[in-house]
Amino acid sequence: MNKNISLEEAQSLLFERCMPVSRETINLSDALGRVLSENIIAKENIPPFARSPFDGYAFRAEDTSKASKGNPVILEVIEEVPAGSYPRESVVSGKAVKILTGAPIPEGADAVIKYEETEVNGNLVSIFSSFKSGENVVPAGEDVAMDEMIAPKGMVVSPPIIGLMAALGISQVPVYKRPKIAIISTGDELLDISEPLRPGMIRNSNSYTLAAYCREIGADPVILGTVGDRVEDVGAMIQRGLDEADMVISTGGVSVGDYDVVGEAVSSIGAETLYWKIETKPGSPNLAAVKDDKVILSLSGNPAAALVIFHLLGVSFIKKLAGYTDYLLPQIEVKLKHNFRKASPRRRFLRGKLVIENGTAWMEMTGGQGNGVLRSLVGCNLLAEIPAGSEPQPAGSKLKAYLLQ
Amino acid sequence: MNKNISLEEAQSLLFERCMPVSRETINLSDALGRVLSENIIAKENIPPFARSPFDGYAFRAEDTSKASKGNPVILEVIEEVPAGSYPRESVVSGKAVKILTGAPIPEGADAVIKYEETEVNGNLVSIFSSFKSGENVVPAGEDVAMDEMIAPKGMVVSPPIIGLMAALGISQVPVYKRPKIAIISTGDELLDISEPLRPGMIRNSNSYTLAAYCREIGADPVILGTVGDRVEDVGAMIQRGLDEADMVISTGGVSVGDYDVVGEAVSSIGAETLYWKIETKPGSPNLAAVKDDKVILSLSGNPAAALVIFHLLGVSFIKKLAGYTDYLLPQIEVKLKHNFRKASPRRRFLRGKLVIENGTAWMEMTGGQGNGVLRSLVGCNLLAEIPAGSEPQPAGSKLKAYLLQ
Repeated sequence: MNKNISLEEAQSLLFERCMPVSRETINLSDALGRVLSENIIAKENIPPFARSPFDGYAFRAEDTSKASKGNPVILEVIEEVPAGSYPRESVVSGKAVKILTGAPIPEGADAVIKYEETEVNGNLVSIFSSFKSGENVVPAGEDVAMDEMIAPKGMVVSPPIIGLMAALGISQVPVYKRPKIAIISTGDELLDISEPLRPGMIRNSNSYTLAAYCREIGADPVILGTVGDRVEDVGAMIQRGLDEADMVISTGGVSVGDYDVVGEAVSSIGAETLYWKIETKPGSPNLAAVKDDKVILSLSGNPAAALVIFHLLGVSFIKKLAGYTDYLLPQIEVKLKHNFRKASPRRRFLRGKLVIENGTAWMEMTGGQGNGVLRSLVGCNLLAEIPAGSEPQPAGSKLKAYLLQ
Repeated sequence: MNKNISLEEAQSLLFERCMPVSRETINLSDALGRVLSENIIAKENIPPFARSPFDGYAFRAEDTSKASKGNPVILEVIEEVPAGSYPRESVVSGKAVKILTGAPIPEGADAVIKYEETEVNGNLVSIFSSFKSGENVVPAGEDVAMDEMIAPKGMVVSPPIIGLMAALGISQVPVYKRPKIAIISTGDELLDISEPLRPGMIRNSNSYTLAAYCREIGADPVILGTVGDRVEDVGAMIQRGLDEADMVISTGGVSVGDYDVVGEAVSSIGAETLYWKIETKPGSPNLAAVKDDKVILSLSGNPAAALVIFHLLGVSFIKKLAGYTDYLLPQIEVKLKHNFRKASPRRRFLRGKLVIENGTAWMEMTGGQGNGVLRSLVGCNLLAEIPAGSEPQPAGSKLKAYLLQ
């Protein structure tokens, strides 16, 4: 078994076992935040025709080649085209068509002048400057040309993609199913949220935090509940998760103690352990295993240790499972805003948030960095890396950091 | 009526008329993304007791004051405390208690040594170095101390806040109701997404894009549909929106043309117009009005013009309505990644995305900046501002920018 491996090694071991979920077709109105399972190609132009950007007159640009303030050209208005109508007449030399915002440019016309820049007298309009061909004409396909890809497979559907699909008449959207994630908390010390505290006991918070993070990235979490520190019970609960979901995440029971039973439980149900422990702080004690082509990711029971590894390993794995093309956390360089006073014999990830000041990216720590501290995940959108063997880091140090979500 | 006012003036006129929505109490499992309507105060410590961070032995630090590699101190192990149990015995001089990760520190003990750092012989444990009082003890309240505020009123509930509430046994969460936003698209040229294109017509995309953006910030959008360019019909549709929702957003019909009817429609139902047109590009033609203490925000029919103003004015207004404390878009300074070749006689907002490279924040334009271009909203998370009267902007120019969402 792989033991004490690097984060990157753990990631490859997990990614090798990733089986993306199946597909479905859903209504456009349900597509926000879902992952596209096919490229979306425009079968029409947006806009579908050349149109006017404002209310004015359409005419032939060459008619105005000699127009000036003192010597306007005067054209005859032969028709009025509101938006939603189509011009009946062609525009020939000496003629113009009154046109409203969004209306199609009439045949023969190749320029538009704003209503406010003209002088109108009955059915005659005066133009006081010369225009170039195409001036003030929004060409067909300005936004999206026919056959262009508006969104690739693996992209998350955002509001403007919804808008583009609506404009193209795409009311049914091909997406990946949401991966179902079974969540288990192990430990004899755990109470559920509705139970009063008893001596030596704490309430289960990890299941709820993990479920919420899963929901944020478009997965479908199922909280299976808590289970005590007995190998058979934990094994049975994990097997139930494998039966019901696309992946199992557990917390607790993965360090070296006598009562740390998840490793044994995973073996007892015949799962193959991929690794145990990775070389990071916080979160070193964690393991991954595979059974039935599904991954079991077992994290520490300490909230911050569990959640930091969930962000570094679990989120990208779930995104890959969910069909995201960009499933890896983006990496940036930041400057540390305040001193970090501890040495880092082991590779360390600090919880913080991105602050941009005067065009520079800073990382501000969001609170205590202990294994058990959940609170510093509030507002945390950055995990900054301190390499193994580092001295304390003064403010202003440059660090690599992963952007969360 | 206020006409051609600044973005900031428009914002104050809107904010003055903002009536936050009412409150409700919901289950913790439904609270993700909702806005807290009360401060959340811890009524307990997290963790509730001092505990061990790992598997080891708890003892009195002073017993080890002279311990060294060559001269270990040997303590008698009197009890074993797994997580979830409470120690029965007090630890006196010369004694130790075997303790597992997360278990309460026994009375009398004030330090913990890792299992791996000891030598064990029957019920005797050898310790080879001296410890300070409190060493390797996680104090009660390390994460959250009793009476601390874990999240203020007006904050959006994120996954770690869900976790903290779970840890504190808070299963019912006080939140603001989701504001209901009625969305209307006006224009004789509009088809619905399921209709085939006809000459001169385009499909309604704005309603779908706006609904999706509303959903992203936690509002509850209701698409009322499209309505042609007739004052009575538009007025009736806006009134229906006021009856059903907390705010109405419409697109189209707000410029100067003969067929631009929303201004008249708003007056015809007795709403008070707050302003018409603001000094920005894109999106100058827009108006806001109030009736029944509810705001009507009427945007351009051009997608980008509508959506840029929605981001600059609508989003912060809806967030304020929804009870957010941080309802204003954060402002940062960025450097322009590429040239922007146009002069800006009017104050202009460019669509782009934040790119952090070597610790510097850049803005990369996301595509064409025309009024009708929806596509450059894809991936756009930044609106950078070019002041009125500016020349073309070379790459590297410093700009103020609003971060979206």
